[in-house]
Amino acid sequence: MPAMQTPIRTLTFAATALGMVLATPFACAQDPLPSWNDTAPKKAIVAFVEKVTREGSPDFVSVPERVATFDNDGTLWAEKPVPFQALFAFDRVKVLAPEHPEWNDKEPFAAILRGDMQAVADAGEKGVVEMIAATHTGMSTDEFAAIVRSWIATARHPKTGRPLTSMVYQPMLELLTYLREHGFKTYIVSGGGIEFMRPWTDKVYGIPPEQVVGSSTKLKYEVRDGTPLIFKLPAIDFIDDKEGKPAGIQSHIGRRPVMAFGNSDGDRQMLEWTASGPGPRFALIVHHDDATREWAYDRTDALAKLDQAWDEAIAKGWTVVSMKDDWRTIFPP
Amino acid sequence: MPAMQTPIRTLTFAATALGMVLATPFACAQDPLPSWNDTAPKKAIVAFVEKVTREGSPDFVSVPERVATFDNDGTLWAEKPVPFQALFAFDRVKVLAPEHPEWNDKEPFAAILRGDMQAVADAGEKGVVEMIAATHTGMSTDEFAAIVRSWIATARHPKTGRPLTSMVYQPMLELLTYLREHGFKTYIVSGGGIEFMRPWTDKVYGIPPEQVVGSSTKLKYEVRDGTPLIFKLPAIDFIDDKEGKPAGIQSHIGRRPVMAFGNSDGDRQMLEWTASGPGPRFALIVHHDDATREWAYDRTDALAKLDQAWDEAIAKGWTVVSMKDDWRTIFPP
Repeated sequence: MPAMQTPIRTLTFAATALGMVLATPFACAQDPLPSWNDTAPKKAIVAFVEKVTREGSPDFVSVPERVATFDNDGTLWAEKPVPFQALFAFDRVKVLAPEHPEWNDKEPFAAILRGDMQAVADAGEKGVVEMIAATHTGMSTDEFAAIVRSWIATARHPKTGRPLTSMVYQPMLELLTYLREHGFKTYIVSGGGIEFMRPWTDKVYGIPPEQVVGSSTKLKYEVRDGTPLIFKLPAIDFIDDKEGKPAGIQSHIGRRPVMAFGNSDGDRQMLEWTASGPGPRFALIVHHDDATREWAYDRTDALAKLDQAWDEAIAKGWTVVSMKDDWRTIFPP
Repeated sequence: MPAMQTPIRTLTFAATALGMVLATPFACAQDPLPSWNDTAPKKAIVAFVEKVTREGSPDFVSVPERVATFDNDGTLWAEKPVPFQALFAFDRVKVLAPEHPEWNDKEPFAAILRGDMQAVADAGEKGVVEMIAATHTGMSTDEFAAIVRSWIATARHPKTGRPLTSMVYQPMLELLTYLREHGFKTYIVSGGGIEFMRPWTDKVYGIPPEQVVGSSTKLKYEVRDGTPLIFKLPAIDFIDDKEGKPAGIQSHIGRRPVMAFGNSDGDRQMLEWTASGPGPRFALIVHHDDATREWAYDRTDALAKLDQAWDEAIAKGWTVVSMKDDWRTIFPP
């Protein structure tokens, strides 16, 4: 490099650096959570993480005990107009319909095929179970993972048109990274299907398959035509929701979380189990109150009610995030 | 430090180092598996680990995919005269007997209380289920963990008199460490109880609770007198044995192991599932053929038969360890 260029390059670099500092007053290099406003929830998170990770602190928590559990739908990614796994199931019904002429007269399949979402909802829990059996079972776990991977690579949100994997919350992505950088192991603990989430959570959230806890269908190992496989049976094995969440955590992790994050009554027991442990614990609820940038729903929502968990959060001093007031950004750019 | 002492210290150090080298011809610093004889199994393990961890090797396996699963009873620790979890159950029956006068007339409890092991065995699977319900359920997971920890701190082997936690296989402890040093995550996948193993596997094997897969009773989260707890219900949830092992691996890990280790027909499906995966895979069976230093049993053993798995190992070229010929040491000193 000719010597004459050096001062110019240095000046250019200095100007660029100065420009970066000036242009990002709210997101300086020292801020690990730039998409969070400097309001109470961010301060509470940072204060908690600092006290449990500072050697010699009376609240110090050893690295192996640093378990943080996250609900998925409505906590890490959006869940409106319906949980995205339902979109997957609807799409699968459409793909499989030619092999099932009987579905034209059978709910909830007929309603799905004619796009009547109210009729799908009216089919209730029995309808959901039949839809799960038809779309999530009857193949090997490897085949199912391939179906999910192929679907999620192109699936788009019905309202925003964005890829579903971009309907994740930027502040929570930053939080996951921040916690991992402080020695936490981050887990998903979701009512969603464990085999539905695992094919993409590592890429989207940095959460590997062994750190995903979810609802499941029964599995059966067998050798078919000389090939060993694990078959997904049309029978519910475990529902990882409400009181199922602490049980799922115990079964898969065997440790009580130190931090837990949720957004609905389905997360109440996980938050309660976490917050009531001995030593320092942290429980947080994401409140969907931003109808402009996302959706606004809470006490009366049909699919993801935040009611009892909200009351318990207020009574027990858990952290409540207002998406409107506490998040600078909702979705990644 | 006075300068004059330096040469003496240097000489002393050199002599000590020389002495160490001379005194440990079989356990030089370069050998990570000193309790293994230099026979085929050790060579196969080392060759496999080297090829899957060498950057640029056609058989290279990325760190997150390096999953190694180990059976526990008979693979990591001994299992004679009965699996050690049965000793725990027998001791619990004795402790709880004063509260259960009806046990004096009820099998398998009466047989346990009078020490009639044949009658216990004759009570069969129904007897085992009743014994598990009486000794492993009806308390919280935290209480059960405390009971196990307290028991295992003093439990001794009925024949050798050694602490049960010293009835582990020294070559397997070295293997666990060796694999972890090469980026493998080591898991237990055992027919034993998941909640029975977790309280001590980290200390004994370096395997933390979240890497233990085992059989389980159903769990129920509830708040009792204001205290949240997870209750162990008297109902079997999952049997992590035989075809249950691949299912348990999928449920808890969500990845197919690259290496698997077992010793009986209860491990056959796990070994088969592992060995039949794409890319490099390694399956190993520990054959108990050393009646002098441990126990000798295989095809006709009532509790831990090695028969079909042995045939499959021979047919498919899995590695078979002769404890007599391939292990220099069995138990830790």
